[in-house]
Amino acid sequence: MSDMSDPIKSLTELGKKILSSIEDGHFPRIEIPARSTENIVFDEQTEQFILGDSRTTRDSSNSKHIRSFMQLMWIASFSKRLLESGRTSSLRDLYYSSEAFGVRFKDQAESDRLLSDLEALIEYPRESLGFFPEEHSSIYGKVIMRYTVKGYEDKEVDLTISPDGLPIGPALLSASPVRTDAKLILAVESGGMFSRLIETRCWERFDCILVHLGGQAPRSTRRLMRRLHDELHLPVKIFTDGDPWGMHIARVIIAGSANAAHIRDLAIPTAEWIGVNADDIVRYNLPCEDMNNRDLKRLDELSKDSRYLSDDWQSAIESFRRLRKKAEQQAFSRFGIDFVVDEYLPTKIQ
Amino acid sequence: MSDMSDPIKSLTELGKKILSSIEDGHFPRIEIPARSTENIVFDEQTEQFILGDSRTTRDSSNSKHIRSFMQLMWIASFSKRLLESGRTSSLRDLYYSSEAFGVRFKDQAESDRLLSDLEALIEYPRESLGFFPEEHSSIYGKVIMRYTVKGYEDKEVDLTISPDGLPIGPALLSASPVRTDAKLILAVESGGMFSRLIETRCWERFDCILVHLGGQAPRSTRRLMRRLHDELHLPVKIFTDGDPWGMHIARVIIAGSANAAHIRDLAIPTAEWIGVNADDIVRYNLPCEDMNNRDLKRLDELSKDSRYLSDDWQSAIESFRRLRKKAEQQAFSRFGIDFVVDEYLPTKIQ
Repeated sequence: MSDMSDPIKSLTELGKKILSSIEDGHFPRIEIPARSTENIVFDEQTEQFILGDSRTTRDSSNSKHIRSFMQLMWIASFSKRLLESGRTSSLRDLYYSSEAFGVRFKDQAESDRLLSDLEALIEYPRESLGFFPEEHSSIYGKVIMRYTVKGYEDKEVDLTISPDGLPIGPALLSASPVRTDAKLILAVESGGMFSRLIETRCWERFDCILVHLGGQAPRSTRRLMRRLHDELHLPVKIFTDGDPWGMHIARVIIAGSANAAHIRDLAIPTAEWIGVNADDIVRYNLPCEDMNNRDLKRLDELSKDSRYLSDDWQSAIESFRRLRKKAEQQAFSRFGIDFVVDEYLPTKIQ
Repeated sequence: MSDMSDPIKSLTELGKKILSSIEDGHFPRIEIPARSTENIVFDEQTEQFILGDSRTTRDSSNSKHIRSFMQLMWIASFSKRLLESGRTSSLRDLYYSSEAFGVRFKDQAESDRLLSDLEALIEYPRESLGFFPEEHSSIYGKVIMRYTVKGYEDKEVDLTISPDGLPIGPALLSASPVRTDAKLILAVESGGMFSRLIETRCWERFDCILVHLGGQAPRSTRRLMRRLHDELHLPVKIFTDGDPWGMHIARVIIAGSANAAHIRDLAIPTAEWIGVNADDIVRYNLPCEDMNNRDLKRLDELSKDSRYLSDDWQSAIESFRRLRKKAEQQAFSRFGIDFVVDEYLPTKIQ
């Protein structure tokens, strides 16, 4: 992600391989790691989802493959052009742009799928190929990042520059961390809590970088956290609502998701979910609601999910099941506006 | 919004009035502009929604009023405390915080409604009372703003500091515009288009400040646009998807919405919707979809809406009705990634 020239190199290699097949008089063919459910395995060693060994072949001599073969090649060439011109695009835009080149996709689902194939093939995530989500979550804390995007080359930005935080957009994702005073990354589910933690100078008290997840975190946000974790050697803690959905937001950051199993460098196996868990709801007597059928069903699903087979996670699920209650992280406001920073977080972070 | 001391003054006045009633041996009572549908009128003069003359009485001697009277007073006091301590809160947080004070709301809808009553009573929007939405849209362009929030007092920020834009959060909303090189505010519906226009340096070519709306714009975003419009004397143009929903995003920015009719300084009557309109879809032969029943029903509703009675707006609706097609703003990518900046916007902006 830091070095955009690598994906360009991989895309160029891919193009050369196809071309040399043609020059040698062969129909070009490629093999892509299979992204089908059967080939997605939870790796006990690294504690994350990865792809197995199955591969799918796209053979341009096969009339059933020729269409998707061509679509894949077009996406690869569009992506190379994006990177070379320092531009970015979105999934939606990719779909529409195809028409400019006489390439047709049935619908956006089809172009999305082919882009995932390209990710699996050249082993770069779409953000490294120039494709970014439309909506961004935010970040705030004592880190200096160095931009690489056009017009901002080598400019350094302090991530406390805006008291509202900075959006995790294309520019920040392609920037490099330079240095930090922080000792921890604290990821937070809701925007209200994120703002509260900035205002109460939680980032200063706990020397932490705050990341707003905004529900299930976009892949780009997980990627930036992983990168700060790797390059600045910062542990990651995750603070969510106290319900199956919040717990799963944390688990996906820690262990990855099935539909991104073909992407490396996304999961953060040492990241820790600090709560709100069922015990917190009881201990702090938080305002809570009864779980509905959807919540209970979700707990059942998660209890069978390969990412939740350890004793600790099974016990977290079991506690929710016994309690049958859920609470939002903002429920701490019941005890006053600073309670979460003065009382809850210190016990969880230290 | 710039001068947070004014709302504090109004809240203090309100408290004094109540207190002096009690000291005089009277049950305090207040009169609030009625926010009921019958009292919301479209003002032909200013071309925006405003409240009529009806007023609702809350009399603390009436046992039916005493609960909501007390709730309203508590919100006023909570708000004063927020402003005095330089803190912010969200609607959700307000609801939970009430429990810390032994005040009960049936649900969040009730606390939201009471906060709107307070807005109507003291004539300040909730952002001036310390309450902000959890999610923020973004802004980018050549403006210098001066922060007022704690820890950032008098710090100036250039809104081109982050190539991903800056979120329109509490800090930016309470900041003051200092100076600008821009000649125009260009509000854009989708995040993809916003990023594209930053990257292609559209803001430089057209001397514009870019605002990302993210669908129906949050009130806080409309407020910031209005303020930049007023204080920097910048015209506002709005670029949305080509469908009834995009058109209405523009119309609400221009003429206001019924549920914010009690808020002043939100509508921008001189703002202009540049498209995508039905004629653009035809003229540029944009990739489009057939309107579904929901779209067509929405056109019917809008055609009877008091904000759409002028010939121009009726004709915009009629064109969509005849065409029965809709297109997204990103559909311009069909003609290449720069077409929208090189071809479409120049004809619309100049």
